Amino acid sequence: MAGELDFLFYPRSVAVIGASHVPGKVGNAIMRSITANFNGKVYAVNVKGGEIEVNGKKFKVYKSVKEIPDEIDVAVIAVPARFVPDVIDECGEKGVKGAVVISAGFKEAGRADLEEELVKRARKWGIRVVGPNCLGVTNLENGFDCNFNPPERQARPKFGSIAFMSQSGAFGAAILDWAARHEVGMSKFISLGNMADLDESDFMLYLKDDPKTKVITAYIEGVKDGRKFFNVAKETTKVKPVIILKAGRTEAGAKAAASHTGSLAGSYKIYEAAFEQSGVLSAKSMRQLFNYAKALAMQKPAQGDRVAIVTNGGGAGVMMSDGLLEAGLKLAELSEETREKFRKAIEEGKLPEHMSYKNPIDVIGDAPSSRYELAIRYALEDPNVDVLAVIALFQSPALDEGIVDVMEKVQEYGKPIVFVAPGGEFPEKMARRIEEKGVPVFETVEDGVDAVYALVKYGLYLKELQSF
Amino acid sequence: MAGELDFLFYPRSVAVIGASHVPGKVGNAIMRSITANFNGKVYAVNVKGGEIEVNGKKFKVYKSVKEIPDEIDVAVIAVPARFVPDVIDECGEKGVKGAVVISAGFKEAGRADLEEELVKRARKWGIRVVGPNCLGVTNLENGFDCNFNPPERQARPKFGSIAFMSQSGAFGAAILDWAARHEVGMSKFISLGNMADLDESDFMLYLKDDPKTKVITAYIEGVKDGRKFFNVAKETTKVKPVIILKAGRTEAGAKAAASHTGSLAGSYKIYEAAFEQSGVLSAKSMRQLFNYAKALAMQKPAQGDRVAIVTNGGGAGVMMSDGLLEAGLKLAELSEETREKFRKAIEEGKLPEHMSYKNPIDVIGDAPSSRYELAIRYALEDPNVDVLAVIALFQSPALDEGIVDVMEKVQEYGKPIVFVAPGGEFPEKMARRIEEKGVPVFETVEDGVDAVYALVKYGLYLKELQSF
Repeated sequence: MAGELDFLFYPRSVAVIGASHVPGKVGNAIMRSITANFNGKVYAVNVKGGEIEVNGKKFKVYKSVKEIPDEIDVAVIAVPARFVPDVIDECGEKGVKGAVVISAGFKEAGRADLEEELVKRARKWGIRVVGPNCLGVTNLENGFDCNFNPPERQARPKFGSIAFMSQSGAFGAAILDWAARHEVGMSKFISLGNMADLDESDFMLYLKDDPKTKVITAYIEGVKDGRKFFNVAKETTKVKPVIILKAGRTEAGAKAAASHTGSLAGSYKIYEAAFEQSGVLSAKSMRQLFNYAKALAMQKPAQGDRVAIVTNGGGAGVMMSDGLLEAGLKLAELSEETREKFRKAIEEGKLPEHMSYKNPIDVIGDAPSSRYELAIRYALEDPNVDVLAVIALFQSPALDEGIVDVMEKVQEYGKPIVFVAPGGEFPEKMARRIEEKGVPVFETVEDGVDAVYALVKYGLYLKELQSF
Repeated sequence: MAGELDFLFYPRSVAVIGASHVPGKVGNAIMRSITANFNGKVYAVNVKGGEIEVNGKKFKVYKSVKEIPDEIDVAVIAVPARFVPDVIDECGEKGVKGAVVISAGFKEAGRADLEEELVKRARKWGIRVVGPNCLGVTNLENGFDCNFNPPERQARPKFGSIAFMSQSGAFGAAILDWAARHEVGMSKFISLGNMADLDESDFMLYLKDDPKTKVITAYIEGVKDGRKFFNVAKETTKVKPVIILKAGRTEAGAKAAASHTGSLAGSYKIYEAAFEQSGVLSAKSMRQLFNYAKALAMQKPAQGDRVAIVTNGGGAGVMMSDGLLEAGLKLAELSEETREKFRKAIEEGKLPEHMSYKNPIDVIGDAPSSRYELAIRYALEDPNVDVLAVIALFQSPALDEGIVDVMEKVQEYGKPIVFVAPGGEFPEKMARRIEEKGVPVFETVEDGVDAVYALVKYGLYLKELQSF
């Protein structure tokens, strides 16, 4: 914790302005979210005063933030838009540092004037603003969660190392829910809203120095300030990967974006070039975004683009070969030394006669984990191999659970590894166990291809940087 | 049931040759699979004789198929490769119609001679052969299941209307396991193996007339006879959709395929042209294969390529617009009449002021199901709309469960509908309920794009056919 915006994610005390005792109301849902896991101090504010009960705890309701007998770091504001500027003034008088404005009814509803007024007042007091028209911020580390979606509709992901920013609140919520379901760990979520003050670049800069965030991801329709974004992205990607799902890539998408967030999406070609030059990985879909992120959160970037595949199924090896080449990667050509090792091991009966040790290395359907281990070691010892993709079809009972330990051990070579385990319940269970050992596991071959691509693409970007 | 190969999928009596009492052995696993749900007669055969117990039932073990005091429709053979030709002769003497040869050790292991011998003997007796070197056939309707993968490692999907053929046994097994996990229903699974006799075209022809199969899917690396395949595919796609995942598309993939199934994959361009001309949908990934299949199994093909989107999240609408355009589809331009309906409904307070009724139609985050219904009806009544994509972000508690009934009712317009519900547990639960009403639901926007693409692509192919 050393960032300028730490107070927004690690507040000691929070005021919920517009707190309500009526279930279903936004001001009630926010109280419910914030008090569920957060152990900072939470104060309720509502002009009506009184008392409210949330999550089994009673809260006195202050009529104004100014009445609270304590310092307040962050105000979460959920009052009708027209009252927000005055509430900001009260926050200013109180010495509040940050305002998370959940309320809608500003620029997106044709009230740019109200939004300007909000910013003007905030600037006067030096208050930084998230939103308006957003789900606020969620810090999965300390439970500070402004999101008004109830947990029974939108689960929260476990704490992990991927940060996510979204220009779409609704889509952001869907992603959190999806991440929870797929056991993807997140550090911080930021619903950017109208970005009247703080924008995607400000948060990227904060997340760059956030020790709890290893990978920064974002859904955006358009950036607020191109130059600022480009410079911040360039600095950030030197330190950690940035992955962006940019919507509004096509003409129809751009039109839809204009009517959604008012983003002038601009030509996607310009975005593509900016991403490329600043080392940002551009994802085309939600799954790709998280395939990239999971790989980079768990493994080191690759030193080159030569991929070895070890598989117990020929067909999956063929598919992976196709996918890698279609993504612009290369299949490693195994060195003569490596081939000699395989020949010898086959001669000695340590590996089966009919296996293939061309790349993809096919250890065949009856491979136990010990056979995987040998093949994986030979592949990783080869100087022609930069990244390893292991495919395991767990439907064959020959493949024992020892593969979990194998995957732990073979990380000693320091080369990035991606694991693919297609299928249903059993592979899913094994996947979670292998991930506990640090190797990311993917459900389909195409997800695995994404993962390898991200490790190579970002790795090559870093390498190019170093050569200057 | 009227197809020539019915005896292979609906045998009255089956002999498992190579049946074993040793758990873990293939001949034991096959007995376990076949006797789990199948209610035809099952006989065990092993030169050793004796008795074995499987799934709590005792079976007398006949020393030869010829000793069985009953007619045998199908022999499932799992004896060492070198014995298979003689076993075929015994089957011939017994009058067996079909042999499912699970045993490996033929062409794929350098024993093309043994495979030729197998075919020669089978032809002599008029026995049709599945395999060798395969997982056999699985009929999800009657439980006739030769697959030796144990259920704790590879689940079986529920009975449904998608047939699947695979040139890779291991990958086929992974797909069955995956389909079970994702509640995709299948009619029949065929592990093609070496295709010494029956090949992908023979089975396609059978499935074309199979009343239990609505959609035919396949994983292939190369077809056995290009001309035969093309002709059969052309006839089949007139009756039902055929979707093929062709691996070995790239140079590296083709090389890997050559060493896997010995397929001379040939130029992918030639395959692409053949698929295009014969109306086969070509999928690039496992997910795409099933996105296409699920859509076509549940909805009618579209009459045109103009897509309307109804969404409660602007961002998801933008992403869907991008995806549709990138897939070569069009966003429908709503008619003046439709726009007038929306204007009026907004005036009358039936729809909210700030919604967008350009396409994507954004009913906004606080939309209840009644608002969806109105917007969906307006879209489907529009003659400019051929297909509808509904996106629901269930994370918002405003969206009530009435949406299930809405989706049932709006099918009355006869236009194909695809539903997208991104997120975690709650959307998944709603998805299954909406699917019970006949509308296919997808987990991500990109899956939904695939679905719409398949409905349009196949629909336009059929339309073109009619115009000749």
